[in-house]
Parts: sequence; C-alpha cells; structure tokens
Amino acid sequence: MIDVRVCEVGLRDGLQLVSTFFPTEEKLAWIRAEAAAGVREIEVTSFVPPKLVPQFVDAEEVVREALKIPGLSVMALIPNMKGAERGFALGVHQLDFVMSVSRTHNLKNVRRSREESIADLKRIVEARNAQPEGRRPKIVGGLSTALGCSYEGRIPVDDVRRYAAQLAACGVDEILVADTVGYGDPAQVRAVFKAVMAEVGRIPVGAHFHDTRGTGLANVAAALDLGVRRFDASLAGLGGCPFAPGASGNIVMDDLVFMLDSMGLRTGIDIEKLTCVRAILEKNLPGTELHGAVAKAGLPTQYVKADARAG
Amino acid sequence: MIDVRVCEVGLRDGLQLVSTFFPTEEKLAWIRAEAAAGVREIEVTSFVPPKLVPQFVDAEEVVREALKIPGLSVMALIPNMKGAERGFALGVHQLDFVMSVSRTHNLKNVRRSREESIADLKRIVEARNAQPEGRRPKIVGGLSTALGCSYEGRIPVDDVRRYAAQLAACGVDEILVADTVGYGDPAQVRAVFKAVMAEVGRIPVGAHFHDTRGTGLANVAAALDLGVRRFDASLAGLGGCPFAPGASGNIVMDDLVFMLDSMGLRTGIDIEKLTCVRAILEKNLPGTELHGAVAKAGLPTQYVKADARAG
Repeated sequence: MIDVRVCEVGLRDGLQLVSTFFPTEEKLAWIRAEAAAGVREIEVTSFVPPKLVPQFVDAEEVVREALKIPGLSVMALIPNMKGAERGFALGVHQLDFVMSVSRTHNLKNVRRSREESIADLKRIVEARNAQPEGRRPKIVGGLSTALGCSYEGRIPVDDVRRYAAQLAACGVDEILVADTVGYGDPAQVRAVFKAVMAEVGRIPVGAHFHDTRGTGLANVAAALDLGVRRFDASLAGLGGCPFAPGASGNIVMDDLVFMLDSMGLRTGIDIEKLTCVRAILEKNLPGTELHGAVAKAGLPTQYVKADARAG
Repeated sequence: MIDVRVCEVGLRDGLQLVSTFFPTEEKLAWIRAEAAAGVREIEVTSFVPPKLVPQFVDAEEVVREALKIPGLSVMALIPNMKGAERGFALGVHQLDFVMSVSRTHNLKNVRRSREESIADLKRIVEARNAQPEGRRPKIVGGLSTALGCSYEGRIPVDDVRRYAAQLAACGVDEILVADTVGYGDPAQVRAVFKAVMAEVGRIPVGAHFHDTRGTGLANVAAALDLGVRRFDASLAGLGGCPFAPGASGNIVMDDLVFMLDSMGLRTGIDIEKLTCVRAILEKNLPGTELHGAVAKAGLPTQYVKADARAG
C-alpha cells in the first residue's frame, strides 16, 4: 500500500549536468539497488539526441535492462516525437514530455514556441493511442519553469493554469508541475497547484521541485496539503543549476522519503536501504558534492517506519 | 511593519558547540551587522556558568554592548535563577528560560527534574515582576525536545501540551516550542503546535526548529499555517548536533528569511545585507561548514522583496 509516489529522476535530471560519462553498468546498478529498496518509479534516461547530451548515448540499453526489473515503472524524458518513437519502440512505461511555461525558456530548452510544443504533444498522444495494446505508455505532461524562470522571473499563475488546460486537452495521463530553477515558496506552490488542480479536474497533478534556495521540502509540505501525491526527487540531491555553480538541484530523495515516512505516509521505500544506494554515487562521482541531511544525521532514536505504524 | 519575527540564535545555540573562543569584538561585529541588516531580535549569549561553557565567559560584555544598539531586542538564555539575576542586573530585554519536555534530557541538560525546572521558572517570573519598572525583561519559556529526544525518541503530544500549560501558569510572556534534535516533520508540528496553542490561549507561541534531517523549513511552513509568527534561526545554520558529527543544526536564517520574504511575509530584514554577514563567520570559523542555499544560488531573477511588494 502506497500513500505517496516518489519518483527518482537523478539518472536523468541529475546526470544530464554531469559531464563525465556514468558507466551504463553503474547506472543499472543504481536503478537495481533503488528498485530493491522499494522505489517503484524511475526516470532512467532522456531520449534527447546523444550529440546534444552524450550522457544519454546508452538510453536504449538502460531502458531495455530496466524493463526487466519486476514491479518497476520505467520512465524516460522526451522533448519531441522522435523521442516518443524511441520510447514506443522499447515499450517504456511512462513518457515524460517537457515544455516550459516561460516562453523564453521553452525556446532555449527545446527550440520551439510553446504552441509548437503543444502541437507536438497532441501528435505524440495520438501516436501513443495508435500503439498496440500493452505498449501504450502513460504520457506525463511536464510544465517546466512553472514557479519561476531564470530569464523571465516570476511566472503568472494564470499562464501555468492555461498551459495545464492545454496539456489536459491533449489527453495526458498526468501533469507534472516543475520548479525547474528552484524559485518556489510554499505560498506560491499553494496558488499554482490550486489553480492547476481546479483546472484539470480528475487528471493527477504531481510536483517536481528543486531545492536550489532551500525551500524544496517546504514546497512538498504545501503541495501535500493540497492533495499532491506524486513527487520527483533525486538521490543525494544529484543535479544542480546551470545558472548557479555549486547550488543544489533536485530535492534530496532520501530526505524526502524520511519526511514523508515520518509523517506516516507510506512510500513503499525503505529509507535505510535507500541511503545505502548513495555509495554507488560516491564511487562514480568523486568530487561531486552529495547532499542529504538524513544520510549525515541518521534516523531518530527508536524510529518506527510508517509501514510498521500502519501495520 | 513586520509580519513574522525572526530571531537570531547562532551566537548562543551555534557558538555553544564551537570549542574555540569566538572573540568578543567579532561577536559584536556579527550582532551589529545583523542589526544593520534589519534583524530586531538576537539571542546574544547564554548565562550558564563560564566553567561549563567557556565560549560565554564574555556574556556580560556582549550584552552591555548589544544593549547600546538602537531598536535591537537583546535576548539571553538562562537555565536557572542565577542566570536570570545576571540578566536582571544588565537590563536584558528577553530571557529565554529552557527546560526539556523529555524527562531524561532535562536531567542531563539542566541537572534537575522537570518539576524543579517549573518551580525555578515560577520564582524567576516572581523575581522579574519585583524588578523596578523598565527593567522587567520579557520571559520566554522554551520547551526543548518537544518534537523528539535523542534519549527517549518521540515525545507524546500531551506531554508538550501539559508542560506548555505549566509555563503559562508560571506567567511567561511567550512560549517557544523547540525541536532541539531535529526530529520533527510537518504533520507532527501541526499536532504539537495545535495542542499547545489551544492550551495557552493568548500567549504567543514561537518555534525553534533544527534542520538536522532536512525538514526545518517544511516545519516552518506548517507552523506558519497555524499562525506561528516567531521563528528562531542561525545565520548559515551555525550549530550542529552533538549526537551526529557533521550534521546541521539550527535552520539557516538566510534561507528562512528568503522563504518568508518570497511568500510576501515581511521580516524587516534585508536578505542581501544578511547574507553579507556570513563573511564574519567565514573569517572567524575557518574549517566550519557553513550552510545555506540562497548564499550559493543567489536571489531569483527580477526578485522583488516583500517590503517593496507591500509598499
């Protein structure tokens, strides 16, 4: 029984900023170890052109091996139809389509207007629906820079609401509101998620927060209050911010899992096993700062895990 | 106009764990620079026996100089009547009396039973009331380990409520619920603060959170929702946890001020001036890890401070 879904995105959002190649076998070791710790959803790679991001030259192999892990939902990022087709061919479970609410960011990130992105997504959903049964991945519509943009600053709530409505109209199965650059605060989270959730009705809305300015878990707490039940995170907070060297990136998955578990919310993840997976990052990323408070401080005295409390 | 009070406790809760003496003039430079950045409440020292904590051998001098800063409310920690008398003699503005809700922690920390602590506090409030007018400091009653204890683990909510009622009956002017070892999560914060606030009625309830397991600002967000409007923090998160070497301590004041400001809540503090004060810590604490995401990442693009938005 799961109360909150926690999705590992470090292999994509974290590694895309790592310039040295993380060996394929080590990526798989990471994925397998997390799956063994109870992680059920992992964004394992990105179907971008390997020329643009050489880190993902092994996307096909990683996906093929990850798909062999029982019970794991394998997700991949796609920027366009070409990426979607690679996903369909492999039989990936979830495709994470990204566009930015910020006009400028969308142009710089995926090299098209927001209208072109929406048109792409519409074709992708249609192509997905035309796949043979059992090979129709869930399409997650990601709204990047929804809580702020390095180019445009604050993003009007109504812009986020409007693009969420367009994603919904395209037929996505889930919407993911992303604080790509870590500008968000709990009040803003409340305003944005309330507007989006009211707009898209029954479509589940997840959150992808960054901790660049320390507000990551506070934003999770605010989103939880509104009923958000799916959060992206990366082990040891792997990732960063291309605009702020040394700054942290994704929220720390181990700290997130601890917080949820401590609140009595079941994630299916064993926090102790999860923190042990950090060793794979330490080994492969010497010199990279790994974040995480629980890994340093340990669990509280006489800590009782949420699963045991619920049982 | 202030919406939320932020109180610097690094000179006490941070420095008490620093074994090398932080020079008196540098402590004063820190206090003066923060006051100039708009900080209005600073716990400048602890009236414990200097034999126990040599860091506070200059308590009298620090308080005397801090009292000369216009507009600054000078606070000091007291464990007992002896400490209170030192505070009365100097004319300090706020005395922060601490006891632990955990029986074991109170015995180890202040060497008396909780009942003895309450009896002490009663005498301290009476002695305060007998001081000449204009020299009657506000008495803040701190409840340590209210969200967990390294010896006893989880602390029953009803124990916190009960001791809060006893502090209120003693006549304290404010109650400070403290997560001394950083065990708290937002759900627990909600339960504990709800119970305490319902119990003590009109007496303001503040929060002293630690970030030892990454939940510090999430706990602030939860407490804000309940109407808590006073938070302790320390610049650069100075402080730590004697039970977990390398772990972080108090919530990072600069990140807290950013979060509140971003939410549109005025603190009176200029976040940019505040982060500049970190240089004093860097100079005097070489080798000590300073925390803080905003200091690394900088403010968001086109950021508008809460004061300007409200004006």
